[in-house]
Amino acid sequence: MQVEVTWKGRLSFDGKAESGFTVPLGSSADVGGDDDGFRPMELMALSLAACTAMDVISILSKKRQAVSDFRVTVKTERASEHPKVFTQATIEYHVSGKDVQEEAVRRAIELSATRYCPAQAMLRQVFPIDLLYFIYEEEDGSTRLVTQGRYQPELT
Amino acid sequence: MQVEVTWKGRLSFDGKAESGFTVPLGSSADVGGDDDGFRPMELMALSLAACTAMDVISILSKKRQAVSDFRVTVKTERASEHPKVFTQATIEYHVSGKDVQEEAVRRAIELSATRYCPAQAMLRQVFPIDLLYFIYEEEDGSTRLVTQGRYQPELT
Repeated sequence: MQVEVTWKGRLSFDGKAESGFTVPLGSSADVGGDDDGFRPMELMALSLAACTAMDVISILSKKRQAVSDFRVTVKTERASEHPKVFTQATIEYHVSGKDVQEEAVRRAIELSATRYCPAQAMLRQVFPIDLLYFIYEEEDGSTRLVTQGRYQPELT
Repeated sequence: MQVEVTWKGRLSFDGKAESGFTVPLGSSADVGGDDDGFRPMELMALSLAACTAMDVISILSKKRQAVSDFRVTVKTERASEHPKVFTQATIEYHVSGKDVQEEAVRRAIELSATRYCPAQAMLRQVFPIDLLYFIYEEEDGSTRLVTQGRYQPELT
């Protein structure tokens, strides 16, 4: 796999991948940038969120769960000293639908954490990752939180 | 820092970061996707490329190097078995300009590798990263490769 970033001036770049997609990259004004693109570490957090989100929705679909909405957030803590690495992350899985089963959600999160998600397998070697889930019931056009919990993977 | 991915159906998501930018995420058809966005691991490789590229161009600018074009590629090897983690990466820095000094390029790459780039500091704990550089001279509208080398950081 290969990706490339091409300089546009100052601290601005275009990022391109083999899939053919491009993304703008930039820095905030306080470090001399023009606020014209993703910060690099945002893309790392997004790679983690997207990697596990794709696993989980794929597994829930195979388990015939009636998911209507699904979003995943990643919150990160960073060191205050250079190189300001991530020191902790929390992944939150928010699953909405009809009668979505907690056991199916837990199993999907488990399979992503322990078997399928490369971003999670790699980054877990660098900092701890907490996994939280929230299951909502959709009824009569409204959404109600029915279950929430934490999954602690047993890693080998 | 927080990022979020929101499901659009099948294996497609939109990714959003606090900087306000959004990016499409998708999967290839052979795994049931619609080829409608970046693969998650492409974003991880791009975070590494962009992180070190911003460091290097910033340092070369401070060193008053006359850089006209600059691009950084990241090539990765992946394990064949799930979770298909990255097993090795090669970062190539391609610097074009007028009399760009090799020592300045090496020092910029060194500072990014050992002090400033969080993506590189984190991922180097997971797999080896090779650093190659190529310096081109721009003259009369053409570009000529004048120096190339490898930088091996001394990590503490």
